[in-house]
Amino acid sequence: MTTVPRELLERMFKAAVEAAQPAHRIAPFLPAPPKGRTLVIGAGKASAAMAQALERHWTTPLTGLVVTRYGYAVPCERIRIVEAAHPVPDAAGLAVARRMLELVQGLGEDDLVICLVSGGGSALLPLPGEGVTLEDKQAINRALLASGAGITEMNCVRRHLSGIKGGRLAAACHPARVVNLLISDVPGDDPIDIASGPTVADPSTCADALAIVRRYGLVLPPAAQRLLESGAGETVKPGDPRLARVTTHLIASPQMALEAAAQVARAAGITPLILGDSIEGEAREVARVMAGIALQVRRHGQPLAPPCVLLSGGETTVTLRGGGRGGRNVEFLLALALALGEPAGSGPAIHALAADTDGVDGAEEVAGAFMAPHTLARARANGMRPRDSLDDNDAHSFFASLGDSLVTGPTLTNVNDFRAILIA
Amino acid sequence: MTTVPRELLERMFKAAVEAAQPAHRIAPFLPAPPKGRTLVIGAGKASAAMAQALERHWTTPLTGLVVTRYGYAVPCERIRIVEAAHPVPDAAGLAVARRMLELVQGLGEDDLVICLVSGGGSALLPLPGEGVTLEDKQAINRALLASGAGITEMNCVRRHLSGIKGGRLAAACHPARVVNLLISDVPGDDPIDIASGPTVADPSTCADALAIVRRYGLVLPPAAQRLLESGAGETVKPGDPRLARVTTHLIASPQMALEAAAQVARAAGITPLILGDSIEGEAREVARVMAGIALQVRRHGQPLAPPCVLLSGGETTVTLRGGGRGGRNVEFLLALALALGEPAGSGPAIHALAADTDGVDGAEEVAGAFMAPHTLARARANGMRPRDSLDDNDAHSFFASLGDSLVTGPTLTNVNDFRAILIA
Repeated sequence: MTTVPRELLERMFKAAVEAAQPAHRIAPFLPAPPKGRTLVIGAGKASAAMAQALERHWTTPLTGLVVTRYGYAVPCERIRIVEAAHPVPDAAGLAVARRMLELVQGLGEDDLVICLVSGGGSALLPLPGEGVTLEDKQAINRALLASGAGITEMNCVRRHLSGIKGGRLAAACHPARVVNLLISDVPGDDPIDIASGPTVADPSTCADALAIVRRYGLVLPPAAQRLLESGAGETVKPGDPRLARVTTHLIASPQMALEAAAQVARAAGITPLILGDSIEGEAREVARVMAGIALQVRRHGQPLAPPCVLLSGGETTVTLRGGGRGGRNVEFLLALALALGEPAGSGPAIHALAADTDGVDGAEEVAGAFMAPHTLARARANGMRPRDSLDDNDAHSFFASLGDSLVTGPTLTNVNDFRAILIA
Repeated sequence: MTTVPRELLERMFKAAVEAAQPAHRIAPFLPAPPKGRTLVIGAGKASAAMAQALERHWTTPLTGLVVTRYGYAVPCERIRIVEAAHPVPDAAGLAVARRMLELVQGLGEDDLVICLVSGGGSALLPLPGEGVTLEDKQAINRALLASGAGITEMNCVRRHLSGIKGGRLAAACHPARVVNLLISDVPGDDPIDIASGPTVADPSTCADALAIVRRYGLVLPPAAQRLLESGAGETVKPGDPRLARVTTHLIASPQMALEAAAQVARAAGITPLILGDSIEGEAREVARVMAGIALQVRRHGQPLAPPCVLLSGGETTVTLRGGGRGGRNVEFLLALALALGEPAGSGPAIHALAADTDGVDGAEEVAGAFMAPHTLARARANGMRPRDSLDDNDAHSFFASLGDSLVTGPTLTNVNDFRAILIA
């Protein structure tokens, strides 16, 4: 390999983020201007940036209302950007959900609604179904999380207790044309799972939701139970005529970001292997598995021969034990260094990058970090104890002290985590 | 795929175990009978079975002494099989180590020593270096395990505090010819790491061991510290003339077992991908990562297109929380089912097998189990709660109740865990 490993890894990460940039990804999917009005709505962490990109490409009049997370607003001239709480909904989110449903009332066949949806939109657009309170929904959420139900099952129950999710917002736009532009951060990229699908049809039913409630022995608040049993919580189904004029485009996804990074690797003569766009698990344990695969490359040339790069996306978790400065990507990376151990005397070297594509790994404005064969040795020479840093969840301090942090600033998009392990 | 998935998975596992069977693997590596005496020594969980296989193929006179774990003895006619404690050494192991060193005294150039080494041999052949007690070694072991040192570092310290490891047993055989036959269960398959290498040269030094002691801030008992500082604990180095007549053959390894399974898959038209022969990590977290990779195959045809099988070996760990009947392989398998969730409406089905190649996963005589797309649904229909079973570390009960346990009886070999995830 003639390229410097760290530079190559950084180029891969930048390509991944670029592939998910609203500024690049909005224009190709914009419809022709309508005869009537153009209304822009949306919700999610990347949705303000999507609105800004749309405004720059849209030449005819438009109005709009988009909600994003506190701190994620960007300047827009014609679309009103509102901030609300994530991941626990607040009154600001509730107010904007009501306002958005009002805005889409009375549209005509010649009108166009462009809906900009991205990860986080579910919490940012909370509207409990009839009789259900925000507190009820929070209690149901806690019970679901503790039940062992899968994310798909949890989302099914949530959608049927909502007044805006599961296609209801799109149905309210009828008879206007609706164009959905989605940035996915969910495993499987199913539109119904992105922000709980406010503007797409939902094949699941109240009966499905009730079956899940029974399966996990959940006890719902009476109003919620009534909503499901009476069928009043039914979502908008595929084939519903009110959704006949809805079209949906996935404009960015973790997989697209990984493919962009893979292309950079190929151009540098490195074989990419995409292991998964939605790898989950405790960060330090995911690191041990990835280390095992990387060492297999070095020892046996499997699952593929070096020079190669193992790419993966998705969202790991960190069970906090210490009080340090960390994030799931740098925790992964420090655990990876420890699992790989000291560099082998011979054989290809292993370098890695792990970062959050939104530019924020954990609580601070650091996207992630780089790991190299001598990371542990350099740290020990500086008087650090890598294992203690990991136990204290202090990986940001660890990599910062080595000058190996990756700082990008907010990227204005989010296709989840990015991990690249280069064996070359 | 025309084959029944479960049958195919079982054939792959059987091929993996067969590839590691002493009965098949000993004969090709046996040397010609010597002019002088033939002495067989050995230590490890598979070493009694190795001795039995050797006896069956050896036509000229021989004597021998081999130590294995309590319960792992098999009938031998000419080689004496002794049982001792594993993983914490006992007096029986200490006595057999002393006896083995005595046995190899006074051999001549025309004599042959065949040394049968397999996993577990380190604990089964404990002989502390001069002045160090068995209690000292146990205390050092505990300190090493808590220090964060890697396995290679821990083994380095241990070898330099031993009176028999790190080539010392082979040096004691000098000037006889020594043929090592090894079954590996360690990451990397380095002979010095299998049973702490009693009969192979050790490139590491007392100075290396002292550096590790300092690196992790360990406090050694005075006799142990003296052994390292005086250089009296030095092991036998590569190039030492006493090892000039030692030859070493790796007769079975996790990788060879995986390759055998891969061959079965290929013959059935399924593409195998070996992810690693030494994957480590908490069993349920390893399962989540493997589920992510399997779902990537289904959704994106990456890292390879179905029909395919993801193969891996190595040793996962289970942090006990519950009081159920489990083992690391069935815990992995149940967590895999939960991570995969309910089967997708379309796309290839996912079946899996996870088992210990020694036939014993956890504490009972069950090797592992099978998982199929409807495993969770069948269990729920039987009134079980899969998440609760996992939380109670009760995966053996879970799979037994479905009739999906895999029972082989003791296999008389050990190349660690075997996992196969079939997407077809």
